[in-house]
Amino acid sequence: MDIKEKALQKHYEWGGKLEVISRAPIETREDLSLAYTPGVAQPCLEIAKDPELSYKLTRRSNLVAVITDGTAVLGLGDIGGLAGMPVMEGKCCLFKEFGGVDAFPLCIKSKDPDEIVRTIELISDSFGGINLEDISAPRCFEIEAKLKERLDIPVFHDDQHGTAIVVGAAMINAIKLAGKKLSDITVVINGAGSAGIAIGKFLLKLGVGDLLMVDLCGILNRDEQYTNPAHAEMAKLTNKRNIKGDLAEALKGADAFVGVSKPNLVTPEMIQSMAEKPVLFPMANPEPEITYDLAKQSGAYIVGTGRSDYPNQINNVLVFPGVFKGALRVRAKAITEEMKLAAAYAIAGLVTDDKLSVDYIIPSALDKSVANAVADAVAEEWLKSGNK
Amino acid sequence: MDIKEKALQKHYEWGGKLEVISRAPIETREDLSLAYTPGVAQPCLEIAKDPELSYKLTRRSNLVAVITDGTAVLGLGDIGGLAGMPVMEGKCCLFKEFGGVDAFPLCIKSKDPDEIVRTIELISDSFGGINLEDISAPRCFEIEAKLKERLDIPVFHDDQHGTAIVVGAAMINAIKLAGKKLSDITVVINGAGSAGIAIGKFLLKLGVGDLLMVDLCGILNRDEQYTNPAHAEMAKLTNKRNIKGDLAEALKGADAFVGVSKPNLVTPEMIQSMAEKPVLFPMANPEPEITYDLAKQSGAYIVGTGRSDYPNQINNVLVFPGVFKGALRVRAKAITEEMKLAAAYAIAGLVTDDKLSVDYIIPSALDKSVANAVADAVAEEWLKSGNK
Repeated sequence: MDIKEKALQKHYEWGGKLEVISRAPIETREDLSLAYTPGVAQPCLEIAKDPELSYKLTRRSNLVAVITDGTAVLGLGDIGGLAGMPVMEGKCCLFKEFGGVDAFPLCIKSKDPDEIVRTIELISDSFGGINLEDISAPRCFEIEAKLKERLDIPVFHDDQHGTAIVVGAAMINAIKLAGKKLSDITVVINGAGSAGIAIGKFLLKLGVGDLLMVDLCGILNRDEQYTNPAHAEMAKLTNKRNIKGDLAEALKGADAFVGVSKPNLVTPEMIQSMAEKPVLFPMANPEPEITYDLAKQSGAYIVGTGRSDYPNQINNVLVFPGVFKGALRVRAKAITEEMKLAAAYAIAGLVTDDKLSVDYIIPSALDKSVANAVADAVAEEWLKSGNK
Repeated sequence: MDIKEKALQKHYEWGGKLEVISRAPIETREDLSLAYTPGVAQPCLEIAKDPELSYKLTRRSNLVAVITDGTAVLGLGDIGGLAGMPVMEGKCCLFKEFGGVDAFPLCIKSKDPDEIVRTIELISDSFGGINLEDISAPRCFEIEAKLKERLDIPVFHDDQHGTAIVVGAAMINAIKLAGKKLSDITVVINGAGSAGIAIGKFLLKLGVGDLLMVDLCGILNRDEQYTNPAHAEMAKLTNKRNIKGDLAEALKGADAFVGVSKPNLVTPEMIQSMAEKPVLFPMANPEPEITYDLAKQSGAYIVGTGRSDYPNQINNVLVFPGVFKGALRVRAKAITEEMKLAAAYAIAGLVTDDKLSVDYIIPSALDKSVANAVADAVAEEWLKSGNK
């Protein structure tokens, strides 16, 4: 049985991948009167007096909503929120299993950004954080920005920031191993959707020397007029030499490639045109922009993909459980840029120098100790810089 | 330590009374690829083709939202949704512990009925049913009615219908024990809020001979003009003799009293003015309209209250877990009146004739077998009459 059939069969067996259980015993008359009426009136009154106590007296202390509108589910596109729910449930399983964070999936039956924002705002008191998921670009930028403005709990679009942080972590270690400095390298990102743009902005924050963003229309540059405001913004922030052309042109002399686009776009010749010790992260999933084997044969120094069956799997499961675990621990009101950087360095730091190698630049996606390291770094950073 | 202090302390210890856990194992690379990417794409695609499969491939098959706006929390009034969350969590614990139904609490930060309706509508695909909770009257009527119109999943305002069903069950057995027929009796309900009105309508459906609804302004009757549309409606449906006056007047010659109002409104003299073998359900909580002991001393034949420390506790925990368990089992699109009646008769029927006594007219609130009986009755009724 192949993985598709087996996954479907398992989903029928599971009948839903999550379960909501009671942490309070409900067996005796006293149990009832403590967890429910009349005793439950007391915590209600306490929260009415001091809303901050909701973080001690209800589960929002450890609870994240995983919310989608179903407009960009995996690589399947706009299949709708209902059809996207198996992904949301799966994400919640990962939150719990890797981070010990309770997560609950919600799909919103609207594609209107304002309506989505308002809906999330109205239910936000039920949660300690909001993880946005599989929302199409450029709507996801607007939705996240408005929510951040209106809510005082962390809002995190994982497809953007989770991906950016884990790519950043991998890049830190790959460039270190290649004996280069981040400030000296040029990175090419192929794909200027939500993930590509978030990765680009994050790599700039990490201090890479230059960045070229390549989309269907070629390298983003300052002589074009872009209708997509995110593209217009990135065209200003990147491409110092203001070069034009396609992916092949962009890769000439570049130090690193990050692909969040489509299968088989990168050729051996393109790799051979790159700088010494080229780093390639072809992350299109399940079929990358160039296979691990072909990239290596073509001279790639380090290759990382989204796949678990090759070395260097770049998977944001290394990020989101720990980010929210840390943010919830210190009751952070947001996930700041500094916290994201701290998360990337924490993940990179878990690969110690004695173990760092071309086939081990990032911890295993199954390593459940990563979330704690990320949580510690994120929590510490919030306490240090978040409240300013 | 009294119950209030102890309940508060326990809530601090629990740190939230619910927990969301994974039903799928996440340990190996294969686990990840089945529960999450790439395998999870398959159930998504199946649901995209046939939305009904969401009831097999996601947790909505067994999942209810417990939703409040916090406008009428317990007897505490409009303390807001956030402060109401300990009650919602407690309710969810009862759903799981008594019915095996997963339930998740949400508070909505709005008091506008249309906005509340729209919010619930937009997230309704995430659930198999909606349990409304602690929403003030008359807003709760409008909210429930609009949701029923728009959603094809069960919507149930427990404060109304759960209470009505359990009172109905108790009344069936009490009147039977008193040797009377429902069609011959007159019932007085004191309190014409959401619970009182729902109880009234339900007792009429059960076939009681006459009903008098008493509110602050006296017995509802056809010569008054009511601004509250629910009162106007009840004035038409009740009070066959169109009598006027206060509670004392209403109780003269009445067979049964149901109180959903305030402590200590019923006097011994009022009970002595009732018909033979008077049945009294003073359910104001925690202080009833007349205490169990005083009511019995004053000649009450049967007394049922909301309290667990006296016989005949009339508690809707006997109702909602089973109602949703049954409705979810058969994928009912609504909780129909017939299903509510079936639930009441199922609960009443659990007290067999050999055990029925003045101090045992209804099963214990802690009896976890009740939910199964209710579920069976509700599911059977939906299959029989629901789809017509």
